[in-house]
Amino acid sequence: MRTSQATGTTHRLVSTRICIIGLGLMGGSLAMALRGKCSALVGIDTDPQACEFALQHAIVDETADMDAAIDCDLLVLAAPVRAILSNLEKLTKMTAGSRSPVAVIDLGSTKTEIVGAMQGLPEYFDPIGGHPMCGKEASGITKAEADLYRGKIFILSPLERTSPSALALAQELVAAVGAKPLLLAAEKQDVLVALVSHLPYVMACALMSTALCQEDPQVWRLAASGFRDTSRLAASDLTMMLDILLTNREAILNALQDYRNELDGLTTLIETGDEQGLRKVLSPVVKQRAEMYR
Amino acid sequence: MRTSQATGTTHRLVSTRICIIGLGLMGGSLAMALRGKCSALVGIDTDPQACEFALQHAIVDETADMDAAIDCDLLVLAAPVRAILSNLEKLTKMTAGSRSPVAVIDLGSTKTEIVGAMQGLPEYFDPIGGHPMCGKEASGITKAEADLYRGKIFILSPLERTSPSALALAQELVAAVGAKPLLLAAEKQDVLVALVSHLPYVMACALMSTALCQEDPQVWRLAASGFRDTSRLAASDLTMMLDILLTNREAILNALQDYRNELDGLTTLIETGDEQGLRKVLSPVVKQRAEMYR
Repeated sequence: MRTSQATGTTHRLVSTRICIIGLGLMGGSLAMALRGKCSALVGIDTDPQACEFALQHAIVDETADMDAAIDCDLLVLAAPVRAILSNLEKLTKMTAGSRSPVAVIDLGSTKTEIVGAMQGLPEYFDPIGGHPMCGKEASGITKAEADLYRGKIFILSPLERTSPSALALAQELVAAVGAKPLLLAAEKQDVLVALVSHLPYVMACALMSTALCQEDPQVWRLAASGFRDTSRLAASDLTMMLDILLTNREAILNALQDYRNELDGLTTLIETGDEQGLRKVLSPVVKQRAEMYR
Repeated sequence: MRTSQATGTTHRLVSTRICIIGLGLMGGSLAMALRGKCSALVGIDTDPQACEFALQHAIVDETADMDAAIDCDLLVLAAPVRAILSNLEKLTKMTAGSRSPVAVIDLGSTKTEIVGAMQGLPEYFDPIGGHPMCGKEASGITKAEADLYRGKIFILSPLERTSPSALALAQELVAAVGAKPLLLAAEKQDVLVALVSHLPYVMACALMSTALCQEDPQVWRLAASGFRDTSRLAASDLTMMLDILLTNREAILNALQDYRNELDGLTTLIETGDEQGLRKVLSPVVKQRAEMYR
């Protein structure tokens, strides 16, 4: 263990054996970003090809099967949400290993169900919810990149049972991959992320679906940068997105309802040709959007 | 006039005096892309600062007022749609100059109303509708760039009265700025562009509006790349977009109706937790999106 002279905090990560379940885009990229910053990286994946790729490219030091999940100091659950829930169920049935307590963090996009399941883990696990706000349309470990997390928000959702030590280790992990930590309760995170991420996904899919219904190849010829950007999220990995849609239904449905109200309001203003009304609604929209990403 | 040995076609552009009404992002960028490829570039704008900027940066050879609009071989109407309609009304009252016929093309995003107004121009004008499918959120001549049109689709909507000569000159103009011409009737272009461009704009605005309604600064902190891309069009120039919304209402309302049907369908599937139903709708969406922009 190293102690920083400047802050007096202990740097545990360097002596931490990390096990990652799920060697896809997220898990693979995390491993790449952690290389050299921990004592060992162990990868677990049901897909032998993903394991082989991770070993061949030195993304992990070793691969193992699920039984080895407790032989580490920090266990990272990096699969899609419902696979994480299934992993947590398996962990519940495992007996304590020699390294307990094992800190557990997940990288799932929805938090309420996961944190609820973490609550039921045996006491030799020390869990905390996590959600790095990054990703790209491509999926799989072959698309992993060490800089995926750099500069991105990494939400941490501690449970009541989360120890200060597990929280500190999670914060070290976030810092090690270059992300910015943000503490947020699971339910609050689900409401906010439904609005800024899951709603835009459903919008993008509905747009693509509307265009597909026209059955006119000219549509695709004319689709320029505006269409490309507005529909980008529709290319997201479907398994991951179905898990999100089905484990954050209430928050997503609320966001969709709010969005539909705004859409209906704009539609009425266009229908009645109400220029002043449109200007009144759209002026703050243009202003806010311009301020967000100058 | 130069004649190409290879194609036998006449290159008129090089001996063409071009007048551009509207020195904003579109008109300024067009002028920059045409530099050295025509005999003279004349700029007209009601804003003296835009004219001064264009002269100072040698974007045009000279500036003039509206009376000079007929002293050219090719007149480009590069203002927002309703300003183009007002320009066309002024042209209707002008008497023939020494250079007639004057070919007239516009760069407006909606075509039915503009082409309808062009129909009423005196016979010494030779009009054709145009719509380059490019642009960016930033507006104004200070943001103009010579490559704005490069590789982009440039829709041409000839009228019945459009002469083969005006169509050929328009095609030369499109080629000169590096764009790809696409012939499309005005009404058809308005339906297609409503779907691939105006609908995404309204969606982006409704998303921003939904987020603004939350009055929660955390929303903006969490808004990552997915939100940024899906909301990008909301930053478009408001004057330009109001003109579009108000001159293409029918096609936009139809696109909004189709989109809302798709959105309602997805909402119901999420509400009932219908995983198979969601997979059935979303699989072709993911596939098409991935094929579009590999």
